[in-house]
Amino acid sequence: MTDLADFEQSWRDLAPIGRSASSGGYFRQPWLSAELELRAWFREAASARGLEVEDDPFGNLVAWWHPATGVDTAVGTGTGTGSRGRVLTGSHFDSVLDGGAFDGPLGVVSSFAALDLMRERGVAPARPLGIAAFVEEEGSRFGRACLGSRLAVGATSWADARELTDRDGTRLGDVVEGGTSTLLADVDTYVELHVEQGRALVDRDAAVGVGSAIWPHGRWRFDIAGRADHAGTTRMEDRADPMLTYAMTVLASNDEARRTGQRATFGRIDVRPNGTNAVPSHVTAWLDARAESDAALAELVGAIERQAGDRAGHDGTRLSVSAESVSGEVAFDGALRDEVVAALGGVPVLPTQAGHDAGILQDAGIRSAMLFVRNPSGVSHSPAETAGTADCLAGVEALADALTGLVA
Amino acid sequence: MTDLADFEQSWRDLAPIGRSASSGGYFRQPWLSAELELRAWFREAASARGLEVEDDPFGNLVAWWHPATGVDTAVGTGTGTGSRGRVLTGSHFDSVLDGGAFDGPLGVVSSFAALDLMRERGVAPARPLGIAAFVEEEGSRFGRACLGSRLAVGATSWADARELTDRDGTRLGDVVEGGTSTLLADVDTYVELHVEQGRALVDRDAAVGVGSAIWPHGRWRFDIAGRADHAGTTRMEDRADPMLTYAMTVLASNDEARRTGQRATFGRIDVRPNGTNAVPSHVTAWLDARAESDAALAELVGAIERQAGDRAGHDGTRLSVSAESVSGEVAFDGALRDEVVAALGGVPVLPTQAGHDAGILQDAGIRSAMLFVRNPSGVSHSPAETAGTADCLAGVEALADALTGLVA
Repeated sequence: MTDLADFEQSWRDLAPIGRSASSGGYFRQPWLSAELELRAWFREAASARGLEVEDDPFGNLVAWWHPATGVDTAVGTGTGTGSRGRVLTGSHFDSVLDGGAFDGPLGVVSSFAALDLMRERGVAPARPLGIAAFVEEEGSRFGRACLGSRLAVGATSWADARELTDRDGTRLGDVVEGGTSTLLADVDTYVELHVEQGRALVDRDAAVGVGSAIWPHGRWRFDIAGRADHAGTTRMEDRADPMLTYAMTVLASNDEARRTGQRATFGRIDVRPNGTNAVPSHVTAWLDARAESDAALAELVGAIERQAGDRAGHDGTRLSVSAESVSGEVAFDGALRDEVVAALGGVPVLPTQAGHDAGILQDAGIRSAMLFVRNPSGVSHSPAETAGTADCLAGVEALADALTGLVA
Repeated sequence: MTDLADFEQSWRDLAPIGRSASSGGYFRQPWLSAELELRAWFREAASARGLEVEDDPFGNLVAWWHPATGVDTAVGTGTGTGSRGRVLTGSHFDSVLDGGAFDGPLGVVSSFAALDLMRERGVAPARPLGIAAFVEEEGSRFGRACLGSRLAVGATSWADARELTDRDGTRLGDVVEGGTSTLLADVDTYVELHVEQGRALVDRDAAVGVGSAIWPHGRWRFDIAGRADHAGTTRMEDRADPMLTYAMTVLASNDEARRTGQRATFGRIDVRPNGTNAVPSHVTAWLDARAESDAALAELVGAIERQAGDRAGHDGTRLSVSAESVSGEVAFDGALRDEVVAALGGVPVLPTQAGHDAGILQDAGIRSAMLFVRNPSGVSHSPAETAGTADCLAGVEALADALTGLVA
């Protein structure tokens, strides 16, 4: 095990940024103070290592380690079996509200540490190696997960994205310049290291694992319109209360997901007028659903929507459901996965139920792989999310080993 | 029918204040701009009529019409059968979020119009007649219904009230001076006119009715603590999701209230972190419950709490319930009620399920009565709340008739 004192120092430097004193959780919203501070840290870390930082009109960042002069870096002239474009690693800085310290930043900090380790070992890359920090991976501000990477590969157009608004009504178009990104122009390989968000590695007693696929998943907005009424004077049978329709939909979604072994969650709700003595006029709620296949996901969401509609009829409310974002199944590149597993000397291979920028890049034709670092709590998107120092250092070594093969 | 052009002009003057352009509903929070504007209007209306305005350290207002000099106004020296203190009428200005135009302001505006009508008719009061505007009747800002009248009669102490905070964390003690109110010192009779909040007068084909009693009612805060988790990666069976406990509690409260003919509503919820892809860590929700008797209310809330607790055990969440305010049944003074009914020549007498300042004053030993004005929609705490002009003018005449007998 390498000492990697720099990794630990970086981790201590980032710990206070965007941290809530009361809950211990993090809120690092894209393009706001905590994330901007992390991006400033990124530029300093790159500059201290002599890396060239490039950004795009959305705020995505890449710090490039260029091959020494004289090394042939022309695309397509290499001798390996893989393709010969630039290689990228990294992750994101932003967090959900009251999230953990590791989801995102662990991948960025580990990338710098892996680069340090590769230099220590005398690795001389034949191809440029970039460390990326993508913006708005969680979708916690503008409601679109992996927004930065989607914009970078062109999976989401700027014309659509600039009209997105955050909860305060601020348009994305008023926050960033926007336009076209050329940041990933020559990139053909991406490796993202991420804290595990379940207990598969705990169960397998392994510090590090490699990703096989991302479950299909999406967000659906449920709008339930009823009629505002006085909570005291209106007889129960005279009401059109959208909270009842919502409540039954929550229970139905939980039952459906349990029964079929999938996932369905209502974690966000917006009630109007949200007053104690008023029957609500309107409930808006967001369903997060994930399933092992595209067909299973469609079936799950369809069953929930059907039961919500039936209950709306019973309650005298009106339901409308719209898909805000849906991602089909992503299988990571098989040859790359095998190459990474071989470089690490054999580690567990597992699917993930969480979306990641690596899924967006894979979908856009950039072969991608993921490394997961064991999380003893199994919990993420929570202050309880954690990873042991030894496991984090094992992650850095694994990332360095994988990248060394890829840039050779 | 008197013309009462002033009443209609006043109504037009108040219509735009605190009104939402999108919903047409009102939000007039106590001690904030819309309500302050209404209070400025109150002072002008009083001044235009030569009334003396008195306030107290909480912002409650009374405009006094004093007997002409020479009339004996000493307390306790009158010859009638009732008591001989000051007489008060009025209501409140504040509204729930997205409420109607009538709940509150109708009583204040009608009081000024009734006074005008009494003067037109040559009534010379033998006792001071005051028009009151109580603050925070709805409890929409600091969560305590009838807070202004409770403070005015001493039913709530300033030491307790000053620590109340609004949703932005502002302390009541930082909003108003506070202290002791002497505003109601010599008041022994209160008559409040209010828009009806149900359909009893519609069903009885009557423009005006008189109140018999206020149902017992209260607000209970349900705190449900779970564990934040990633909505994608955490298996359904590994979660402790407080939203499930909440949802079942909503449905149970509705079932219980329907079954027993009472009222139970969950109209307000606060979710942490309230993110689409996070299982919530905490749900706080407020139950508004009302019943025909104190025993029925205790039974209703007990049944809901029991079912919520059972479900919390099932979900692995922790439930705590606290009563934020509970008001027992208030029967309005029987002799006063009969006197008012007689003055109006016989009108329907009906209970109300809504709390009112008149209930607080009655409880504090000030004999109180209520007049209700027909509401064709039967709906209140909603932009749909309404009252026809002819009915409003009938209300003004009824109030003038009732007050004329009381100040003689």
